[in-house]
Amino acid sequence: MAEQWDDVAPDAARRLVIAAVQAFAERGYHATTTRDIAGRAGMSPAALYIHYKTKEELLFQISSVGHRLSLGILQDAAAGDGTPADRLGTAVRSFVRWHAERHTTARVVQYELGALGEEHYAEIVGLRREVDATMRSIIQEGVDAGDFDVPDVAGTTLAVLSLCIDVARWFNPEGRRTPDDVGRLYADLVLRMVGAAPQG
Amino acid sequence: MAEQWDDVAPDAARRLVIAAVQAFAERGYHATTTRDIAGRAGMSPAALYIHYKTKEELLFQISSVGHRLSLGILQDAAAGDGTPADRLGTAVRSFVRWHAERHTTARVVQYELGALGEEHYAEIVGLRREVDATMRSIIQEGVDAGDFDVPDVAGTTLAVLSLCIDVARWFNPEGRRTPDDVGRLYADLVLRMVGAAPQG
Repeated sequence: MAEQWDDVAPDAARRLVIAAVQAFAERGYHATTTRDIAGRAGMSPAALYIHYKTKEELLFQISSVGHRLSLGILQDAAAGDGTPADRLGTAVRSFVRWHAERHTTARVVQYELGALGEEHYAEIVGLRREVDATMRSIIQEGVDAGDFDVPDVAGTTLAVLSLCIDVARWFNPEGRRTPDDVGRLYADLVLRMVGAAPQG
Repeated sequence: MAEQWDDVAPDAARRLVIAAVQAFAERGYHATTTRDIAGRAGMSPAALYIHYKTKEELLFQISSVGHRLSLGILQDAAAGDGTPADRLGTAVRSFVRWHAERHTTARVVQYELGALGEEHYAEIVGLRREVDATMRSIIQEGVDAGDFDVPDVAGTTLAVLSLCIDVARWFNPEGRRTPDDVGRLYADLVLRMVGAAPQG
């Protein structure tokens, strides 16, 4: 699961991010110290400080990378070929798969938003608006094409994103459903939510 | 929002539960001490100890009351009059309303499950199975009556509960949608998910 942090450099910074995700997920942001994180990464607190001045900077890095990756997944789906139903199905399948496979990161990203500083929080809110706008554009496109029947596009967008994000809360890698299984099930349920004709 | 704790007695125990919910929601379970909780309730740590031997006992009390209340809501809906679609719509509306109005409690209940001791965790898992079984029975009833078209009843039950529970994460009492608005929107979306004919 380290490949999601491939763009975090240098290597020491990447190790710190991975250690911080684990620590925040296990004990929560407020119960974790920079000393805990440095220790998990096999580094001294002074070595951590070279890369991140505060624990909050680490949280922001995690949140920023997590949001950008999940936004990228939706943007790729929105730019795909086929009908609006194809694009919506792809968006839901890949967004769900990401939240299942990266459930530890996704939980930290979603549950610790309130711990971000004001400026960092504003930047993450901007990314969240883009996530919302991307999903909404796919749904709106289906409505405009006459393929979907959606009385409340904004509310349905909210519900679809919420359904996918909450996979991170309950997904159990030892459970009987794989990330792909959940993605397929959810794509079908979402196409029903928007009143699309079943796809084959 | 205190009425959900009406059955917690005596008054001092109830004050401690309310203080603990606030503290856990703000800082997380692991970053909260029994001293913090006692202080918020205007009591000494020794006075807290009379009612709860450990912080974990407080978390269990909160989780137990929260799960029993939300289970009761679903059971009432399942026992209601009308068609399976009526019962499913009522179940979703009232379950969503509870998670919106009680979002602080619901977040603690959902996100801090991992901090429960083994025996307490097992008891909560039992209540969660009952929640699942109650929602599933309403959906299965609609399938059996030929009113719903649901290829995967277990998966759809999981998705419906997840959609409703996640309201606690994103709901903002200062936002433009009231708990009732979200409940109505979600009841409509869930009836679409199960392939029920629109109700009026």
